[in-house]
Amino acid sequence: MDINKILKCLSENETVSLKNLVEFLKIPSISTDKKYKNDCKIAANWISDYISKIGFQSNVYNTDGHPIVLASAGEGNPHLLFYGHYDVQPVDPLNLWNHDPFSPKIEKIDNDFFIKGRGASDDKGQLMTFVEACDAFFKVFKELPFKITILLEGEEECGSPSLLPFLKNNKDKLNADYALICDTGMWDKKTPSISTKLRGMMGEEICLTGPNKDLHSGMYGGPVVNPIKSLCELLSKLHDSNGKILIPHFYDDIIETNEETLSKWKELNFSDEKFFQNIGLSCSTGEKGYSTLEKIWTRPTCEINGIWGGYTDEGFKTVIPSQANAKISFRLVDGQDPEKIRDDFQKYIIKNLDPSCKIKFISTEGSKSINTPIDTLIIKETISALNDEWGKEPVLAGCGGSIPIVSFFKEILNLDSLLVGFAQDDDQIHSPNEKYDLNSFIKGKKSWARILYNLKGKNI
Amino acid sequence: MDINKILKCLSENETVSLKNLVEFLKIPSISTDKKYKNDCKIAANWISDYISKIGFQSNVYNTDGHPIVLASAGEGNPHLLFYGHYDVQPVDPLNLWNHDPFSPKIEKIDNDFFIKGRGASDDKGQLMTFVEACDAFFKVFKELPFKITILLEGEEECGSPSLLPFLKNNKDKLNADYALICDTGMWDKKTPSISTKLRGMMGEEICLTGPNKDLHSGMYGGPVVNPIKSLCELLSKLHDSNGKILIPHFYDDIIETNEETLSKWKELNFSDEKFFQNIGLSCSTGEKGYSTLEKIWTRPTCEINGIWGGYTDEGFKTVIPSQANAKISFRLVDGQDPEKIRDDFQKYIIKNLDPSCKIKFISTEGSKSINTPIDTLIIKETISALNDEWGKEPVLAGCGGSIPIVSFFKEILNLDSLLVGFAQDDDQIHSPNEKYDLNSFIKGKKSWARILYNLKGKNI
Repeated sequence: MDINKILKCLSENETVSLKNLVEFLKIPSISTDKKYKNDCKIAANWISDYISKIGFQSNVYNTDGHPIVLASAGEGNPHLLFYGHYDVQPVDPLNLWNHDPFSPKIEKIDNDFFIKGRGASDDKGQLMTFVEACDAFFKVFKELPFKITILLEGEEECGSPSLLPFLKNNKDKLNADYALICDTGMWDKKTPSISTKLRGMMGEEICLTGPNKDLHSGMYGGPVVNPIKSLCELLSKLHDSNGKILIPHFYDDIIETNEETLSKWKELNFSDEKFFQNIGLSCSTGEKGYSTLEKIWTRPTCEINGIWGGYTDEGFKTVIPSQANAKISFRLVDGQDPEKIRDDFQKYIIKNLDPSCKIKFISTEGSKSINTPIDTLIIKETISALNDEWGKEPVLAGCGGSIPIVSFFKEILNLDSLLVGFAQDDDQIHSPNEKYDLNSFIKGKKSWARILYNLKGKNI
Repeated sequence: MDINKILKCLSENETVSLKNLVEFLKIPSISTDKKYKNDCKIAANWISDYISKIGFQSNVYNTDGHPIVLASAGEGNPHLLFYGHYDVQPVDPLNLWNHDPFSPKIEKIDNDFFIKGRGASDDKGQLMTFVEACDAFFKVFKELPFKITILLEGEEECGSPSLLPFLKNNKDKLNADYALICDTGMWDKKTPSISTKLRGMMGEEICLTGPNKDLHSGMYGGPVVNPIKSLCELLSKLHDSNGKILIPHFYDDIIETNEETLSKWKELNFSDEKFFQNIGLSCSTGEKGYSTLEKIWTRPTCEINGIWGGYTDEGFKTVIPSQANAKISFRLVDGQDPEKIRDDFQKYIIKNLDPSCKIKFISTEGSKSINTPIDTLIIKETISALNDEWGKEPVLAGCGGSIPIVSFFKEILNLDSLLVGFAQDDDQIHSPNEKYDLNSFIKGKKSWARILYNLKGKNI
């Protein structure tokens, strides 16, 4: 096998490959919203058909939620399991998009080309870099360099409820040597990155009820509890003025990041100025005493992701609402157990709850943080492959996001994961006007081709 | 003129009169929402046509907002100006209604009959009690007992922006001796009430902006300000743990209610138990040291009527939103100036604002509280009329609600207002399943007929 043939094939297929991605992006596979259930099914079938066409044996498995696509092909060592997701985030607020999120566009911004649309980066564009790399092996050599299994879920953006039972019930098909995941980003536009640390996550929705119906704030205002007020007071007790989270025992079990890693991160010369300028802010907030990178890669957070209650439309409605709600999520770091944190959170909320209100919790599946060992053959070969493609040593980075699948793979299949992705910081994933750099797409495919090539026959 | 002929006429017309109200209630004249602009126009035309038909000279005046209906008829002293509003509150949350809010229904609950639908009580049902009393005078005597002007606006539920200029530009048509307003309630199902005190109101919407776009809480969470958190912390600083409002100077100018009034209110034996039971609560909250009636009738409040930000749909979206919003309103009491309170509020909010957030205020027209003198001829005659109809002395009550028109009448037209209405505490105005007691409707019409009869030729 000659890697140059693969790279040439990928170059020749660039236009077709982009058209395929555009087709995939047109499917509004929003997993959190029931209205798009059928679109998720359509997306699952689309990608399964595509993978079959290029040479895999692929099946779509129905679940209690959205379908799971499982495909495999190839023979020999190692057996790698590639994971991606075909579902996307909701698109609200729709008015902030410059175009229909599901009518993808190619746009030139400054000197770079981008593909724009919901899912362009997270995760349809990213997962296609891997799929297209496989396609090139099939096209050039009629076979893959070793056994590859592809697992694509449709519930990554809503807590992956169906994936856990699927993993448990399909261990035989998933008995790989290592997992590959491409849900992460590059260090900058020119420097690739391998993510070796990921934060975990845990989510809770709370609903406070005061009076049993909405009341007129004139006729009832004064002696009657207002659940929005109670909710605000409750949520204001989550942090102290130094950004510390006030839930008892929250920091108890944290395993601090070692000094060597911290000092390597310092050498990266991360630009606070650029980071905050990009998002229209002038300075860092949050937990005092940590750098911005440390805050994102190595410190836990408690965020209010959504709040609602009372009258929220145009004009004024002088109401004391019956209910007020909030969605709260935690990013967790090494040592923190999601279920223990959930328990401590609920206890703290109940302890501080206005006694005139009732509370209901709605829990979302949690995941632990990830810390991958870095002195391994697979990491070494990946560093070399990325160096070859980008002409630069990749950064061994942390990642503030949570990819629950990584901890599921570890816990259920005893698989470590290699996290390589080509997203950029300004891809606007989860935001209006999501985009994916065409350079990420083109060189991402070649990066995967090189990684697969380097790992052929290796005992990892 | 014989009052018994009028009362007999009203009794004979009960069915027709109810049908008219049903027609009026079918029009979804929600004034706060632009979608219903044309329905507000339809409602204005409907009621103007009806008033013309019974004998008034009526005109519909276009404004920058919703139309104003102005009608007059009759001759002689006194000249009374009746005020009502044809607009209604929004209907959300729609899922809590037992039926379409704009398909009114007659329902029997226990032994009482009710007319159900948005606006049944506030204010279409109430204003029709007056209009139908006038109708009876026309039917029986071909004339009104004295000059009556009817003024109906369509913006009561959204701060009456067009009414002020209308009052200023039409002083000649509105030069009455006293105003009549029927937007208030009864003391209980059997005891009428004259409201002599009303709280004022002032509203402010605030919008906090953190980052310039919605961000992924994994990739950005930690060093980046979350405007929902900042909003909650800000709003939690509005009250102390004793329910006192913390805005500086908020209580400075309050004129306390006199001891005589307070002791009369104590004699009313208001049932806290019943009041809180009705709304699913077990106890009073709010400002310590005041009875429930005092809290509603004589103490100011600061309520959060609405809050929203981030992801609020089904499922989870781990976002740090760019913006978070709240609608806040104040009920004001004697001595408090809405514009001074607004100024103090904005200063306090800005002082306590998270420096990483920007803020925008959207102001709503304010109104002062009202305190009507009670040792006057018109109050005496009204007490007598209500006593005749209900067989009970009316309560001289306070009212927690705000009827901005009352202070506009005082300021612009130098008119005092007589506040008589027949709503019940459980009418669910501003809430799902609004209703109006048929007894209120029937005896309300007769009450107005008796009041008008008593005032004929009087120099008030």
